[in-house]
Amino acid sequence: MKDYIKVDEWKIIEEGFNPHYNKISESIFSLGNGRMGQRANFEEAYSGETLQGNYVAGVYYPDKTRVGWWKNGYPEYFAKVLNAANWIGIDIRVGGEPIDLATNRVDEFRRELNMKEGFLKRTFRADVGKTLVDAEVIRFCSIVDDEVGVIQYNFRPIGVDSALTIAITPYINGNVKNQDANYDENFWNEIDKNIWSDGGYVHMKTKKTGFDVVTGMKCVILIDGKPVDVKPEPVVKEKFIGIEYKLYVEDMQEVTILKFAANLSSQNHTVDQLIDNLKTVLEKAIDKGFETMLAEQAAAWAEKWKHNDIIIEGDASAQQGIRFNIFQLNQTYTGEDDRLNIGPKGFTGEKYGGSTYWDTEAYCVPFYLATAPQKVTRNLLLYRYKQLGKAIENAASLGFKNGAALYPMVTMDGTECHNEWEITFEEIHRNGAIAYAIFNYVRYTGDEAYLADYGLEVLIAIARFWSQRVNWSEDKQQYVMLGVTGPNEYENNINNNWYTSTIAVWCMKYALEVAEKVKSADADKYHALAAKISFNEAEESAKWSDIIEKMYYPYSEKHGVFLQQDGYLDKEQILVKDLPADQRPINQKWSWDRILRSCFIKQADVLQGIYFFEDQYDMDTIRRNFDFYEPRTVHESSLSPCVHAILAAKLGDETRAYEFYLRTSRLDLDDYNNDTEDGCHTTSMAGTWMSVVEGFGGMRVKDGKLSFQPFLPAKWNSFSFHVGFRGTLLNIKVSKDGVQITNHSEAETVVIVHGKEQLVKANDELLVEA
Amino acid sequence: MKDYIKVDEWKIIEEGFNPHYNKISESIFSLGNGRMGQRANFEEAYSGETLQGNYVAGVYYPDKTRVGWWKNGYPEYFAKVLNAANWIGIDIRVGGEPIDLATNRVDEFRRELNMKEGFLKRTFRADVGKTLVDAEVIRFCSIVDDEVGVIQYNFRPIGVDSALTIAITPYINGNVKNQDANYDENFWNEIDKNIWSDGGYVHMKTKKTGFDVVTGMKCVILIDGKPVDVKPEPVVKEKFIGIEYKLYVEDMQEVTILKFAANLSSQNHTVDQLIDNLKTVLEKAIDKGFETMLAEQAAAWAEKWKHNDIIIEGDASAQQGIRFNIFQLNQTYTGEDDRLNIGPKGFTGEKYGGSTYWDTEAYCVPFYLATAPQKVTRNLLLYRYKQLGKAIENAASLGFKNGAALYPMVTMDGTECHNEWEITFEEIHRNGAIAYAIFNYVRYTGDEAYLADYGLEVLIAIARFWSQRVNWSEDKQQYVMLGVTGPNEYENNINNNWYTSTIAVWCMKYALEVAEKVKSADADKYHALAAKISFNEAEESAKWSDIIEKMYYPYSEKHGVFLQQDGYLDKEQILVKDLPADQRPINQKWSWDRILRSCFIKQADVLQGIYFFEDQYDMDTIRRNFDFYEPRTVHESSLSPCVHAILAAKLGDETRAYEFYLRTSRLDLDDYNNDTEDGCHTTSMAGTWMSVVEGFGGMRVKDGKLSFQPFLPAKWNSFSFHVGFRGTLLNIKVSKDGVQITNHSEAETVVIVHGKEQLVKANDELLVEA
Repeated sequence: MKDYIKVDEWKIIEEGFNPHYNKISESIFSLGNGRMGQRANFEEAYSGETLQGNYVAGVYYPDKTRVGWWKNGYPEYFAKVLNAANWIGIDIRVGGEPIDLATNRVDEFRRELNMKEGFLKRTFRADVGKTLVDAEVIRFCSIVDDEVGVIQYNFRPIGVDSALTIAITPYINGNVKNQDANYDENFWNEIDKNIWSDGGYVHMKTKKTGFDVVTGMKCVILIDGKPVDVKPEPVVKEKFIGIEYKLYVEDMQEVTILKFAANLSSQNHTVDQLIDNLKTVLEKAIDKGFETMLAEQAAAWAEKWKHNDIIIEGDASAQQGIRFNIFQLNQTYTGEDDRLNIGPKGFTGEKYGGSTYWDTEAYCVPFYLATAPQKVTRNLLLYRYKQLGKAIENAASLGFKNGAALYPMVTMDGTECHNEWEITFEEIHRNGAIAYAIFNYVRYTGDEAYLADYGLEVLIAIARFWSQRVNWSEDKQQYVMLGVTGPNEYENNINNNWYTSTIAVWCMKYALEVAEKVKSADADKYHALAAKISFNEAEESAKWSDIIEKMYYPYSEKHGVFLQQDGYLDKEQILVKDLPADQRPINQKWSWDRILRSCFIKQADVLQGIYFFEDQYDMDTIRRNFDFYEPRTVHESSLSPCVHAILAAKLGDETRAYEFYLRTSRLDLDDYNNDTEDGCHTTSMAGTWMSVVEGFGGMRVKDGKLSFQPFLPAKWNSFSFHVGFRGTLLNIKVSKDGVQITNHSEAETVVIVHGKEQLVKANDELLVEA
Repeated sequence: MKDYIKVDEWKIIEEGFNPHYNKISESIFSLGNGRMGQRANFEEAYSGETLQGNYVAGVYYPDKTRVGWWKNGYPEYFAKVLNAANWIGIDIRVGGEPIDLATNRVDEFRRELNMKEGFLKRTFRADVGKTLVDAEVIRFCSIVDDEVGVIQYNFRPIGVDSALTIAITPYINGNVKNQDANYDENFWNEIDKNIWSDGGYVHMKTKKTGFDVVTGMKCVILIDGKPVDVKPEPVVKEKFIGIEYKLYVEDMQEVTILKFAANLSSQNHTVDQLIDNLKTVLEKAIDKGFETMLAEQAAAWAEKWKHNDIIIEGDASAQQGIRFNIFQLNQTYTGEDDRLNIGPKGFTGEKYGGSTYWDTEAYCVPFYLATAPQKVTRNLLLYRYKQLGKAIENAASLGFKNGAALYPMVTMDGTECHNEWEITFEEIHRNGAIAYAIFNYVRYTGDEAYLADYGLEVLIAIARFWSQRVNWSEDKQQYVMLGVTGPNEYENNINNNWYTSTIAVWCMKYALEVAEKVKSADADKYHALAAKISFNEAEESAKWSDIIEKMYYPYSEKHGVFLQQDGYLDKEQILVKDLPADQRPINQKWSWDRILRSCFIKQADVLQGIYFFEDQYDMDTIRRNFDFYEPRTVHESSLSPCVHAILAAKLGDETRAYEFYLRTSRLDLDDYNNDTEDGCHTTSMAGTWMSVVEGFGGMRVKDGKLSFQPFLPAKWNSFSFHVGFRGTLLNIKVSKDGVQITNHSEAETVVIVHGKEQLVKANDELLVEA
């Protein structure tokens, strides 16, 4: 754990330059706009440790898999978001010496991520050779013009006797690699490049996938705010273009470089239009100018914050943490494009490569449902709908028939990327999360039309999978599900994982229920779908119903709890509190077999099921399971604490709910797990949001209405959050006075607070007293 | 399956050249002498498909591991026997054109492995450019001078009008790689090289491990059998030396190249003596001359065959198969050196890299016990004894304490090389096989002194491991063993594998029994050992006894069988006979999860335990288990059929015993599994021998006597085998007349035939009539 980020409610601040923390800061101070993402690498040369990262959403590369021992069915490629051409680079030489903070003496370094307005600002004073230089750099990825990144780089020499030679080379460099490339391969070919009088571009194409990306720039140089008329010299190398300006600058004169850059990809442009469109985009940007674009950026972020800000009074550190999470989630995914999804590290690093995990459905969907327009979540659902064909192919390659679908564990375009048999083939509960997200979306939005148009088709394919994945046990005279890995990945290839069996049966029930619903609402549509996917309703639903009726779930009479899997009670039952501190985290201290044999749980497993289906269980059942499993849980996944926070809150254990919340609220800001240098834990940030809204706020959807069961954490004076719900925008503020509901919309709405319905008029507010 | 090897009782013969079979033949026609091994690569250039292989026993390289997803505890290196300098190479140009069977038109090609006398002979006629050439090449790895390989290469031009220019370049080439190198790395550095008037050498050193190997040669050239006085030209390249002879040869003149080569390694010589010793070895060889060395080779092989030949009358194909197996096992391991062991592919290919698997203890030990001097098996045991320290380190790295030992799954020098968690950490029954081999050795030889000197120390360390690997189940009120992989690797991470639990408890019992035995035989030695390894007899033996008493073994009352593991009966119970042919082998047709979920068994698992401990079970129990498990067994390991053959024979099912035998008897000769090109299945060859001797011969050791319960396979007229046992050499011949025992030694002996003791006098024979 580190503690170098300064607390501020709206800003992330680093003061003083620590090269050892540079890669961590590169992650934390990342910028993105849903279309592209950029780690907080420096514009000028930096010869120290760095992980360069410019990522273009949806542009990926299938890296040949590295595997120790091949298993039949493994995919050959792992699709990775790849490091694209560097658009931020500006080499600067002052009196012949490069600005390079790894070698210059650095003073007064400060980096600031302005979350309110969406930009990164960096100031420093450095000894560049014999010259003292002051610099201020502002950068942002525009969310208004989402192919454009803008840099304003100001610097001035201080205390020089005579005019200095300054050489400035803004460049675009396509000569980049992924550090996680399995075979140290370069993923890009150069197609073309060109230099203009004020910029230029590099046209690159990914190998294998054939995505064309042009990355270009246009630059303006000013001295003391006035444009200077210097003809730059072109610099052309392989996959590289730059333009070198030579200036003579006096003491204290301020040099400004404005660099407008853009990444355009063939995902969104025809290849023959790429260059023309690049020019148009860049000219539009340069016409707007830096100040206008920055103002537009601030306005657009203000609009976002109106819908998703969480305000915590009385705890600036918590305030900073939660805003950072909301900020990063919004930088990663905007919901404009149903081909995109949310990588576990967003655009902040290479780790975990492929973009989509079940994190999206289990953790991110609740966040976007409440804080973004309905179409944002709908696009996340459509992403999976469009990949249904590949999910069916994937299941077929594993021996499943009749249109059964198994969605991949990790994917970019629907193809499975992961290759650990115990995960790839066995952590199949992910299929359940995808069905659950449909349920969750419809429950939240009321958009039942989605079911007829898309949802049912996915649900049937998933139900088909489960019905083939179970088998009849002659021994038990029940259906069993063998050889699975649950959400608790510290158990592999187990039999009858309660969570997986539970969500599997739920999927079959829900598919039947939705089929009935669609049939009665729109028989024609239903029959058309049934014909399209050869759905033999009589036979298939009979089979599913038989499984629903005769499924086996492990249960412990002694403990009165659902059993995580067969044989769980054969393990030595030790509690986490009795595990010596020097043995943790067990995933770093213990060999894998020891972890597997132990009773220790990585993340919510039985409890994940109870969280998803809480209405099916009484409070005593929930409490018994929570009290049994949580003490055995090491929470070594960042996705673990939020579910526990929500359940603890539900059980009225406010102290523990708050403790669980704390574990992830500043996970990246404090580099809690010593791995933020690889990138931020983007998807788990949604979990932290859930801890606050579903945990402290107790928010649920009950029969088409929002319901709140809030409590105020003891350390806080108040907290409030925004939720959009079926056309209304609400702010819920929880304070010592009670719960204040503000309706920021033109229609009245009914919400449930502590079990009681409350009418909130349009543009009005209401206090439910404590 | 292929059928191109001609049947012959003493020879392996290939007629006609099929380049597609070349790599298969390179494996089958391999030569070795326990100290070095050489695939049947051609001496002259060959531009076609080939897997070059010259292996020097005990010289290995730790290749950096390739792994998809790292697990804590994985080893970083995989030790591989590595391809050493090519010593066989002789480039030949006839009239400027190279002999290269990949491009020459080839006629009358014939390759012959003379197993009786231990050499490889190849003859061919080829159009080399415009010249017709006849050649005959004889090669062998001397088992008398075991650092030496000898080649006699004869050829003559046919039907040429005038004298031809012939260029002959014998060479040593250290520029070799392993095809299975994980990172395409070259494993050798050149240290030195030199050329003499008649040869030269290359001195190479392995990277990382630092083994020095000098490979040198001395050559003689003859025309029509008379030495010619030609000064060769030196050819020197990186890691390469050669000498080029230029000759003028008339029609039908026979050119002979005698090449005496040697591999000397720093395992057996001090580095500063390597070159001198190489010269001595080569001079000795050249002094002996080709004919003498070949005669010595034949005599030495005759001596070996006297002790281990199996003669089958009435089935030449079976005769060829079994002799091939015995021949290859003897080429691989001679038992001279306790640092060496038996790789699954011997010296015939690169696959499976590291040399030692549990195959050695489970399959090879019975073969060497019966067919080789006692010290040969003793050296196999000492190999493990010497690696005890590393086995203890290995267990410690996995969290075990107090001198517990876990022997590696795959190793060269005692360090674990394998990196699949379900195997490396969980296929721990291998530890049992190592203890069982000690038991087996002492039972066979009566060498109880071994226990006090070495065996007990290993047994205690293994028992310590098991006592920590089980845990007390509160639920069952018994000890359980969780998270293991049995011999049936088509189940991973299972709980309470009957075989593993059974052998674990047996190990603890046997360790206690041996401890008692050693204590009463030699209390001083016992106490010295106890002190050395801090053996707390009272406490540890109480713990072990408690486990022995309260161990849980899964059992099915319904089927009356030991259950392979918990939950095995939850699987869909399908028999192999009902599996469509197009689904087999399942390890090629099915994804791994499907294999794991199925009831199908790769190789003997419960039945392996019954085989090891058959005296503990009555015939009904054995039959019930056999009848339950065999029909579920796909035998997709070459180690599977032999155990089934032996048990079927025991159960009196002669037909099936013979069927199981057939599955491996010509596994490589007929390329049954389409993988012989990677090398021969050397360790499984011992299993075939077991099928004959323990299966058809029904040989066991009962109370210090050899016992036979033989039957004659219906297709055979007779079979006979040799066994050495406690100083006697016996030949057992089973024919329609009965069982004839011939005692080839100076002492009388008592053997049991069909349950009845029979005295066989010294140098006498006895027929027990059918």
